[in-house]
Amino acid sequence: MESVKLGILGMGTVASGLINIIGLNNHKITEILNKNIAVSKVLVKDINKARNINLPQDVYTADAYEVINNKDVQILVELIGGINPAYEYIKAALNNKKHVVTANKALIATHGEELEEIAAENGVKLMYEASVAGGIPIIKAISENLAANEFEKIIGIINGTTNYILTQMAENGLEYEQAVKQAQQLGFAEADPSSDVEGDDAAYKISILSTIAFGQRINIEDIPKEGITKISKEDINYAKELGYSIKLLASAVKNNDEIELRVHPAFVPKEHPLSNVKNEFNAIFLKGNAVGELMFYGKGAGSLPTGSAVLGDIMSIVNSSYADNNEVKKDAKYKIVNNACKPYYIRFEVIDKPGVLGKIANIFGANNISLASVMQRQKNGNNTAPLVFITHEVGRKNIDAALEEINKFEFVTKTASIIMVESLK
Amino acid sequence: MESVKLGILGMGTVASGLINIIGLNNHKITEILNKNIAVSKVLVKDINKARNINLPQDVYTADAYEVINNKDVQILVELIGGINPAYEYIKAALNNKKHVVTANKALIATHGEELEEIAAENGVKLMYEASVAGGIPIIKAISENLAANEFEKIIGIINGTTNYILTQMAENGLEYEQAVKQAQQLGFAEADPSSDVEGDDAAYKISILSTIAFGQRINIEDIPKEGITKISKEDINYAKELGYSIKLLASAVKNNDEIELRVHPAFVPKEHPLSNVKNEFNAIFLKGNAVGELMFYGKGAGSLPTGSAVLGDIMSIVNSSYADNNEVKKDAKYKIVNNACKPYYIRFEVIDKPGVLGKIANIFGANNISLASVMQRQKNGNNTAPLVFITHEVGRKNIDAALEEINKFEFVTKTASIIMVESLK
Repeated sequence: MESVKLGILGMGTVASGLINIIGLNNHKITEILNKNIAVSKVLVKDINKARNINLPQDVYTADAYEVINNKDVQILVELIGGINPAYEYIKAALNNKKHVVTANKALIATHGEELEEIAAENGVKLMYEASVAGGIPIIKAISENLAANEFEKIIGIINGTTNYILTQMAENGLEYEQAVKQAQQLGFAEADPSSDVEGDDAAYKISILSTIAFGQRINIEDIPKEGITKISKEDINYAKELGYSIKLLASAVKNNDEIELRVHPAFVPKEHPLSNVKNEFNAIFLKGNAVGELMFYGKGAGSLPTGSAVLGDIMSIVNSSYADNNEVKKDAKYKIVNNACKPYYIRFEVIDKPGVLGKIANIFGANNISLASVMQRQKNGNNTAPLVFITHEVGRKNIDAALEEINKFEFVTKTASIIMVESLK
Repeated sequence: MESVKLGILGMGTVASGLINIIGLNNHKITEILNKNIAVSKVLVKDINKARNINLPQDVYTADAYEVINNKDVQILVELIGGINPAYEYIKAALNNKKHVVTANKALIATHGEELEEIAAENGVKLMYEASVAGGIPIIKAISENLAANEFEKIIGIINGTTNYILTQMAENGLEYEQAVKQAQQLGFAEADPSSDVEGDDAAYKISILSTIAFGQRINIEDIPKEGITKISKEDINYAKELGYSIKLLASAVKNNDEIELRVHPAFVPKEHPLSNVKNEFNAIFLKGNAVGELMFYGKGAGSLPTGSAVLGDIMSIVNSSYADNNEVKKDAKYKIVNNACKPYYIRFEVIDKPGVLGKIANIFGANNISLASVMQRQKNGNNTAPLVFITHEVGRKNIDAALEEINKFEFVTKTASIIMVESLK
């Protein structure tokens, strides 16, 4: 039987997952492809390191170009991550007329368009299903299965680390710092979790998804982002009480010729399917103008789920079942905006004395902010009390203007929490 | 620009949805395909009927073979439903070397294998994404996007009519008959709803999904089925109280070399994502040995969602992005069984007198049925009282043996409700 020969850059979690699946499901894979999958060369840092991987020792090399320039290699699988040197390696491989499969979200989000052009010029394919939401086949769904649709909305929980942290805070009453520590112990968060908790990871992913969905390159700089570092257990408890979960959402919403993009923590109504996506799971909620609302749910990371996505791309290339229909048109059709009117949750700590509520409410009124609900609670030990508002739909500018005034009051002791409420309608 | 020419059999809901989407998203479709989609011939019963469809009058014909044998037609879209005469029409079209796209679940579930062979012999494609779960791209997901996985489990809410009825009973306190009537008024149920409420529709669909997932023809006769006609508002209320929703599940579960198939109402734990799938929405929960747990959620019926699936297939054929990897191997690899041990919910109406609980519990014990919980409630007006049990995992045979004895007691006034509890682990 003929073999498909892979070159792999990196032998970490995802690469070892890929090798495991090829072994485990070999029967099914060869039945579908009518070909074996073989590994010709693998780039590693230390070729002498003991590995629990079923590959002959002589496939390993510490020289990337031994993989990229290897004559046998038909498909290069890039799993080292990061922009450099992955960018140079992939360019070289494409120019060598090798197909490329990658899980590299930072690279695709920043250089995807250029790399797709190089792939097209060389008549080879560049695929990156694994770069967004691990095992969930969301890129193929948007670019192929649902190609008949114009997309109106993509809202995703696409960072498993932050979803794990928020779920643990909500369900087990952990403080933010405790939840981060627990996520690190379980391998759901890195030693330095900042790319996840600050929203960068989710921003890369929504940039990739919206570029495919809207057929227009969406730059990472166009996506305002706010992470979850300021979310307190208190906000989570108020959310619960009001019938919401707090989720880190990455969203792209089209309105006529405008697209609004954002990564931000949001109140999500309990009855919405996104609200029940827990722990390390991811989900992407889509609205197409024909198909209506869809949601895809599954594991967004991990060795085998991400390996499954990489192998799916490899099998697509072998079966030539992948049309080049995700090639991005360069002409900008849509204007990128950031002016949505939404309800907001706002929490203050105030000194508990008469007249406080009235003064704050007056300023909201003066800024055209109308209130949907107000919760005033028992004093804390230190003579302050929490004061919680949910507004009706309003522009963020109005909120910021009101807060500037409100924060001048001497009775406001703590800067407010401000979290958008997503009705998801 | 070159055109792709369709012949369409039928001009009902789905066909008109298809025509609408082709018009609505024409710009995106031609950008992807580099071709126009044109309609050459359409089979209708009455060519003179006034239609709110943007097609020239001369495309209509009352003679199916004017569509099937039309030289211009490259892709035949079959949307008349039912096994005959659709079966003959599709065979003729495939033998005429025309690709076929269909939404016909009954036909694919019964003659799919033969029709796929005819398609392969003629070098054309037979596609049927729209036959299961409307707009949710589940067939492509199983056969292509997730092809690297061996599937362990497929559990679907794949009949929107019954899900609407059960949701209305649970959320608005409707009785079964009222909910059916409401579903009919809203167009979610047919005048004769039996194919939906008896489980036939869901059985066709799970037969198609499991045939693709397991690479083995699963016959509709191998699927035991139970509908929702016996579900009472009372059972739904007990389910709620115990932390469950009642859903009509269609499931296929693989254990080593055995596959267990079933269509049946089941208790689904509130925290499981399937439990929150409401009204006319569908969802399919999958477990692959690499990707882990996935769920796909969306509209399982309707003009535009189903039209989206049909058009997705058409675009795949034009883009040749569809490999023949869902061709089913004929050799049976798995044994079809029906012997799962599960917990059961059982409800009796009993005359409220001392010793009743003990006598019933004894018989459960004698049949090796251990109990997880018992709820005894206040009497009804007529001196009877409900008695509700949830068992631990046990074979259905044991339950049936126990019930045969229990139903002989003169104090048992009403045949029990028996509903499986799905832990979905």
